[in-house]
Amino acid sequence: MANSAKSIQPPKGTRDLYPQDVLVRRYIQNAWRDASLRCGFDEIEGPTFESSNLYSIKSGEGILSELFQTFSGKGGQETLDKIVAQGKADFALRPEFTPTLARMYAARAKQLPKPCKWFTAGPYFRAERPQRGRLREFLQWNCDIIGLPSDEDTPKTRALMDAETIEPCVNLLVQLGISTDSLRIKVNDRFQFERFLSSMGVKESQLDGVFALVDKIGKLAPEKLKQESIQIGLPESVYSVLFEQSKDNDTESYLRALEGKPLTSSMAPKGFESIASAVDATGLNKWCECDPFIVRGLAYYTGTVFEAIAKGERAVAGGGRYDNLIQLMGGPPTPAVGFAMGDVVLTNLLEDNNLIPDGPELMEAVAKPQASIRPEAFIAVPNNDEENRAAAQSLAATLRRGIESETYLNNESRKPWNPDRYAVRPLHTRTSYKSTTNPGKLRKDADSQHAKYFIEIHAPNKVELTDMDKREAITSPTHGSFSINPTDPNFIGSALNELL
Amino acid sequence: MANSAKSIQPPKGTRDLYPQDVLVRRYIQNAWRDASLRCGFDEIEGPTFESSNLYSIKSGEGILSELFQTFSGKGGQETLDKIVAQGKADFALRPEFTPTLARMYAARAKQLPKPCKWFTAGPYFRAERPQRGRLREFLQWNCDIIGLPSDEDTPKTRALMDAETIEPCVNLLVQLGISTDSLRIKVNDRFQFERFLSSMGVKESQLDGVFALVDKIGKLAPEKLKQESIQIGLPESVYSVLFEQSKDNDTESYLRALEGKPLTSSMAPKGFESIASAVDATGLNKWCECDPFIVRGLAYYTGTVFEAIAKGERAVAGGGRYDNLIQLMGGPPTPAVGFAMGDVVLTNLLEDNNLIPDGPELMEAVAKPQASIRPEAFIAVPNNDEENRAAAQSLAATLRRGIESETYLNNESRKPWNPDRYAVRPLHTRTSYKSTTNPGKLRKDADSQHAKYFIEIHAPNKVELTDMDKREAITSPTHGSFSINPTDPNFIGSALNELL
Repeated sequence: MANSAKSIQPPKGTRDLYPQDVLVRRYIQNAWRDASLRCGFDEIEGPTFESSNLYSIKSGEGILSELFQTFSGKGGQETLDKIVAQGKADFALRPEFTPTLARMYAARAKQLPKPCKWFTAGPYFRAERPQRGRLREFLQWNCDIIGLPSDEDTPKTRALMDAETIEPCVNLLVQLGISTDSLRIKVNDRFQFERFLSSMGVKESQLDGVFALVDKIGKLAPEKLKQESIQIGLPESVYSVLFEQSKDNDTESYLRALEGKPLTSSMAPKGFESIASAVDATGLNKWCECDPFIVRGLAYYTGTVFEAIAKGERAVAGGGRYDNLIQLMGGPPTPAVGFAMGDVVLTNLLEDNNLIPDGPELMEAVAKPQASIRPEAFIAVPNNDEENRAAAQSLAATLRRGIESETYLNNESRKPWNPDRYAVRPLHTRTSYKSTTNPGKLRKDADSQHAKYFIEIHAPNKVELTDMDKREAITSPTHGSFSINPTDPNFIGSALNELL
Repeated sequence: MANSAKSIQPPKGTRDLYPQDVLVRRYIQNAWRDASLRCGFDEIEGPTFESSNLYSIKSGEGILSELFQTFSGKGGQETLDKIVAQGKADFALRPEFTPTLARMYAARAKQLPKPCKWFTAGPYFRAERPQRGRLREFLQWNCDIIGLPSDEDTPKTRALMDAETIEPCVNLLVQLGISTDSLRIKVNDRFQFERFLSSMGVKESQLDGVFALVDKIGKLAPEKLKQESIQIGLPESVYSVLFEQSKDNDTESYLRALEGKPLTSSMAPKGFESIASAVDATGLNKWCECDPFIVRGLAYYTGTVFEAIAKGERAVAGGGRYDNLIQLMGGPPTPAVGFAMGDVVLTNLLEDNNLIPDGPELMEAVAKPQASIRPEAFIAVPNNDEENRAAAQSLAATLRRGIESETYLNNESRKPWNPDRYAVRPLHTRTSYKSTTNPGKLRKDADSQHAKYFIEIHAPNKVELTDMDKREAITSPTHGSFSINPTDPNFIGSALNELL
């Protein structure tokens, strides 16, 4: 029996999933897909392993010690000799999706829409010691927006893409029953943090080191932090402000201005006006706050960075803007922003909050209808009115998240998988990113994306609706035109719920 | 730019899937899941990589040259030295699911139901030269039945498990629009083929070699076949009968009796009576035929083996009985049977037959409601009547596959993703595998599997129906009791379609 597989266990840090475990996984995977699709992201997928060069180009050869390296057994001794000579194998199991995404975008940049909203969810691998919340094989969900609406490269549109990236992350959490009491989206801006550090005398060559250290606050022991800060030559004064929270009115004003401040237009700290306004427009302001200590460890982030932090300081998701990476990977210069969420911490969080259904409820929650892949609503603004554009953004956000029913909200023991949860159920909603105001061109945009219903906002109370399959205008029985106001009886969302 | 990722391609034999490609993949994955769930299989999943020992125990060290081997980069030089010393790495990307399944079953054998019907679908890897129909990373769907209905180890129950394994494979093909004109399930029995070979003078030590050779008919050039047959010392007379189809009334009677014969009770060749009768009971006889040259290359098959062969000799799926493997892997002696189907050949087949929807049709086909995870119907026979048991098996098969509507069947340009395809749509249907005839125990069995409706067959025209959620008997408005006959107005399937 010594030679039997009896003693063979699954590799450490990997999982055997029996039927009940698969249902829990699928509950999460479905929620990821639904949240992404409803926010207008298209699904893509890459290989499970890649050339190891793909990772070392982005992160340096050091990254290879954190990866599962892979080689074809076909090459025999020759391959083994080559591995020893090079100190690495030709391939590696993917530790993250971003390099694949950058490669895939670069390969087809010219034909792809602007912006390109992509999501993916699959297995990833890290060669590290397994511990609570970290396994060697895990699932990860990625949402990315590559590029900007055509010809609109302004801080405002970049901030809007940032907010539209945070949107599916928040919608997923809402969908799964996580509340603002137990989780916050903490936002910072790497450029501003850089400027602040420079003003304190940190040299440019030290910046990456400081970011890496700030990212380790709470994870490394204070002595270790001190030691590493000495290694990178950080001035004592900077160290005490950043890591010992010593008060110094001159230098720590940036930190004080940000720490725990809500991210919303009316209270936006200096430099955060654009992102605050975009966060408002997408209805995310209840979830978002500023946090100067969110920097993300990876060197490639530029501008906005954010993390979803649950009570107990668990990071459930993290991401940010990476405007240089697509070019680094051989594509055209293309601003981009994205985030990733793993299944391990998320599952722990849901379990701790008793938010995973069980028994027949789980079976029904998993088999319930999925989000539509065809856009159910496509919103366009056939004029350049600023207010109507904001209304379109806000309506899209409302439709994507759905409106919970009074009876559900008043039920103290409400469960997020309750089939009667919504008064207006969440819809797959897109907006036109074209700068045109030509109604024909906007309609063509909706058509090429196979939208079911086309919504034109002429004014908050003058909303026109077209059934794109039947090419037929639909009018409200009472007033003819619809409204974007959810409390109005002619609310367009209620009309769509009845039609779909 | 030399150091950019511009020149980095996806590894040879792997795929980058853009949104349209993902939809096609999901169309297939959904069909796999639906077919499995409706036939009463539960989903499981294992790690993407396993200890390389898991594969060499089953297939010998030689298998490692066909695998992508994997190691943790964390071990540095020490790991590389160990790989060279051992001639192999600690881990390998899974090339197939069966070893993982055997390991998972062995780990929990005592707690698992009898039989255990499991399916899984995910990525697999082979270190071979990519060619049409074969990639280095591909998806594979596996369905397996491990164990037998409690205490019923007879040729008949084994054959029934064989047929219930072929069932989801056929249902998948039906669901996707493949017809019996373009695909056959070719069935053989390894034991009988062994006996035939022995009668011709083949020694036991030569059997595995002969099976491997027979599996290569059509893949190897005749000279090569001849050469290899000499290497294993096959008598000239056997060679000519097997590979040159020379006629010899004494020895080739087995081959002639099987070749192309339909697999159905009334015409079953000697020794195929049990499987033919099980295939009849599950309504698979239109699809199945005997083929003495189907042996499957792998050494671990015992008894029934089968392949789904499409026109042009493409093998779309293959499997069989492997009664010794669970024990070899350290579990209790447990008969088992299963098959695997890859996505690459299947996709080629669907494309060649114009059976993949496109545009908004594809989007709608992918987002359409999935199969129920709760059993929708659970059929039990509360007496030992042989005829009623056969009726239960046949009803289960009908409900699992659904009944196509007249209008659909009469429409020449019918498409399998047509939403109006079914008069009685396919249902997730289970039968009790308990040997008890106690109605209370049978009902408890349905309950523990969270079935929605419980069906008791007392006679073909005396079928009782219970709503298990409401604990309420349901009667037919006309006759009180229901019928198993699809043309009867009281057909139980139509009643369920209205209730669900």
